[in-house]
Amino acid sequence: MANEILNFGKIDTYPVYVEPFHVDFTGRIFMGVLGNHLLNAAGNHSQKRGWGIGALNESHHTWVLSRLSIEMLEMPCQYEHFEVKTWVESVIKLFTNRNFAIQRPDGTPLGYARSIWAMIDMDTRRPCDLFSLYNGDILNYVVSEEENICPIDGHGRFRFRDAELIRTIDTFYSDVDINGHINSIKYIEHILDIFPRERYEKGIRRFEIAYKTESYLGDRLSLYLQPVDENEFDVEVRKNVTADSAGDVVCQAKIRFN
Amino acid sequence: MANEILNFGKIDTYPVYVEPFHVDFTGRIFMGVLGNHLLNAAGNHSQKRGWGIGALNESHHTWVLSRLSIEMLEMPCQYEHFEVKTWVESVIKLFTNRNFAIQRPDGTPLGYARSIWAMIDMDTRRPCDLFSLYNGDILNYVVSEEENICPIDGHGRFRFRDAELIRTIDTFYSDVDINGHINSIKYIEHILDIFPRERYEKGIRRFEIAYKTESYLGDRLSLYLQPVDENEFDVEVRKNVTADSAGDVVCQAKIRFN
Repeated sequence: MANEILNFGKIDTYPVYVEPFHVDFTGRIFMGVLGNHLLNAAGNHSQKRGWGIGALNESHHTWVLSRLSIEMLEMPCQYEHFEVKTWVESVIKLFTNRNFAIQRPDGTPLGYARSIWAMIDMDTRRPCDLFSLYNGDILNYVVSEEENICPIDGHGRFRFRDAELIRTIDTFYSDVDINGHINSIKYIEHILDIFPRERYEKGIRRFEIAYKTESYLGDRLSLYLQPVDENEFDVEVRKNVTADSAGDVVCQAKIRFN
Repeated sequence: MANEILNFGKIDTYPVYVEPFHVDFTGRIFMGVLGNHLLNAAGNHSQKRGWGIGALNESHHTWVLSRLSIEMLEMPCQYEHFEVKTWVESVIKLFTNRNFAIQRPDGTPLGYARSIWAMIDMDTRRPCDLFSLYNGDILNYVVSEEENICPIDGHGRFRFRDAELIRTIDTFYSDVDINGHINSIKYIEHILDIFPRERYEKGIRRFEIAYKTESYLGDRLSLYLQPVDENEFDVEVRKNVTADSAGDVVCQAKIRFN
């Protein structure tokens, strides 16, 4: 493991190219696609350090994404090359904070992101003590304070009081990942799809999501909208809401438009 | 141009890596994602030879995909590396036939695909004579018969007689590409989403699609299903069907499951 630390350092750079079908009608990358690139960068960073899904699955552990907050100065355009830098900010027993910088190859910042991950036992689905796994090896990858440059707010809190049901959708084959769960990126797409076209002419400044409970192929998702101010909206996704039941909260998101 | 021919030859190899969020619950790549890779390989091949969207847009021309047929021996798995080879099979005035071979890096065939493209004038939206553009330069890229190895059937014909309305969907922000059209790949997703989970346990052997008319953000799409036999189904997508109107045919697809 010591060799790998020397070889890789603590911050990785993951190169991305913006494909034509990955941009919206304004020619800028979809937030969901950007989120997917961040998760790939994270997976790659973990894997290279012996903490990837593959290695973990052997001991019946896996990473679960709990929070993701992305704040953009500018969204990359079709055919643009950009980079995702990622590193571990901190580890707090049951969770790890991983940050991202999104930038042009010349170093111009495009945006930043923060994420929180839990390690769960795949059998019990309970979170694990990260310090006890591999003798606390994960602490070797935490960056210094100087390296942790992520000048965006932390994850916010959600308070849903009078959210309005906006849309109910069924989930299908293409929503589901290899674990049979609705995939983290598809929630982002479904949530952003409730806003009208005009909102995207100016684009998204910040997108936050908190994943609460897993949902599965065939689950019916209800999306509730709660405006915060003129440009900011909270959205709650619940599954299997019926006349008698408020269902379960699947995820909550906050969208700030430019 | 002559230099480029020497440099690039006529067949390109486009490397692909199967990302975790790009596989279905069986761990194999989604057909829509595979289609996206084929279109990227095609775009890249054209662009390198001076026939890319960018160059064409300057003279107010663009490529329009008319047909795509993909037949797979095996679908690549999560984390697998594979290659897409692509070349121009023939040019017949208003259309060009482009083929694909999908294979492992060691050359093992995974599948093949055929496509038909028209070049349209962006102002009139009418097809153009490919022989007259750039003095028929496109003919320089047609492969020899020996190089054209694509052992799958040509594009089939559709005859819808008693197709049953299976689902009506609205289209949203994430369905739409940079031109404001519902994107070619999203149709594939929506079409495959009408089949139950069980069908995907064995996977898709062949997928064909014929694009007929463009649809736009907010268009309502109606999907009609017509079984051909036990494992083969035709699907027609129509837009803006009302009580008084059968709407317009947007695309037609044929799916053969294993």
